[in-house]
Amino acid sequence: MHSFLLEIQYDGSAYFGWQRQAGFLSIQEKLEEAIERATGEKTVLHGSGRTDTGVHAICQTAHFRANTKLSAEQMLRALNSYLPRDIVVRRCQEVSAKFHARFGARRKRYVYAVCASRIPRALGRAYFHWVPYPLDLKKMRSGAAHFLGKHDFRAFTSSVDKKKNTSRTISSFKVIPSKDLVLFFVEGDGFLQHMVRTMVGSLIEVGRGKMPAQKIGEILKSRNRTKAGPTAPAQGLYLLRVKYNPGSCEKSAL
Amino acid sequence: MHSFLLEIQYDGSAYFGWQRQAGFLSIQEKLEEAIERATGEKTVLHGSGRTDTGVHAICQTAHFRANTKLSAEQMLRALNSYLPRDIVVRRCQEVSAKFHARFGARRKRYVYAVCASRIPRALGRAYFHWVPYPLDLKKMRSGAAHFLGKHDFRAFTSSVDKKKNTSRTISSFKVIPSKDLVLFFVEGDGFLQHMVRTMVGSLIEVGRGKMPAQKIGEILKSRNRTKAGPTAPAQGLYLLRVKYNPGSCEKSAL
Repeated sequence: MHSFLLEIQYDGSAYFGWQRQAGFLSIQEKLEEAIERATGEKTVLHGSGRTDTGVHAICQTAHFRANTKLSAEQMLRALNSYLPRDIVVRRCQEVSAKFHARFGARRKRYVYAVCASRIPRALGRAYFHWVPYPLDLKKMRSGAAHFLGKHDFRAFTSSVDKKKNTSRTISSFKVIPSKDLVLFFVEGDGFLQHMVRTMVGSLIEVGRGKMPAQKIGEILKSRNRTKAGPTAPAQGLYLLRVKYNPGSCEKSAL
Repeated sequence: MHSFLLEIQYDGSAYFGWQRQAGFLSIQEKLEEAIERATGEKTVLHGSGRTDTGVHAICQTAHFRANTKLSAEQMLRALNSYLPRDIVVRRCQEVSAKFHARFGARRKRYVYAVCASRIPRALGRAYFHWVPYPLDLKKMRSGAAHFLGKHDFRAFTSSVDKKKNTSRTISSFKVIPSKDLVLFFVEGDGFLQHMVRTMVGSLIEVGRGKMPAQKIGEILKSRNRTKAGPTAPAQGLYLLRVKYNPGSCEKSAL
């Protein structure tokens, strides 16, 4: 039995998100089909977590176990030959049987792309969210600072499960301009459903002057979803990186 | 009667090129429909030239004449409100009745994007051409230098009309790396059908070591299309800019 860790890039435009669901095309399903063709056996692919319908990944991680004679390099080639072109395995390595892509994940990093210009872009519309007004970077950075540290993010999630632990720690939140785009880079120990998109949607309200920056802190404290801004659309969001403890991916950790 | 110059950005993925053709969805047709809705009259939109099926434009130019009370700014807003989201008018200005987007064009600038990496990208596949081997920039630059100046480009076009003047002048050809992309910027007084794509397709052969750089000069002299490399696919090509004589767009040139 061998365990493999995959680093996967995907264009989420055509899929109902990461997670396998009967009757809805998912990225997990496409990858599990490719693994079955490569290894000859059905297996479960464990992702680091879900991504929603239309959300992209620059680097999602996932692991699976299989009886196979294929090396990691051969596995990489086999999977890519069976995958649709909007899902690509960028890296494959053999890992310890103890490694778990979800339980072992220590931090995740996302980027959200907003195009802020009076006139929209015609090109690449599946890869950013367009807003037709200027955004004040200073105000948005001041608003984003409220997210840093450990907070209850109940006001910034669509999840309604009252028993769920909605406490998360945000270690970094950067707002960086790049040509006519504004990029929101956020890193934390975990994210609730729609959390990044609701944080960005609220910061857009701050950036366009509809909400004062300090309001972000008040919304956090309120734990009330209706106080936050709208959930920014899926196509601007990218899972950028999943971080594990040093050495946890190493085969030698066996 | 007023003349308007439009600067248009479009994602060519969904269209059978710029030029209006019965039974095939074209960018010109979509724009002419929007103009008719804005002005209430049918009119012909004159583009600076055609782009092929699947080719994009960062800035195509075109002009039309209309009896209208709309200002250039109102026209811009009206057209964008009637256009599909993959075609955007980025600028609209009133110009002299003498201005002609095609006959007045002095130079055109294109960029062609190649992603050269062993493993493909999953994201943005409609916006570059992927090759699974490394490309030698020095060799491609040496090959591209042969294109500079005035030449008969018959070997680099799909056009078979023997009577057609196939002489063109290339004023600039730059090969610039950008992350895992290689960008080919080419500027000239005009381009034949498939000319940029066949030049790039041939330079890719040079860059991967299948063709010596000096062969480019020999192919040019041969005037024989079968000697050149393959036509690189449409989705990597962008019309970047159309240049006019200074002052030729000005209303005051009336």
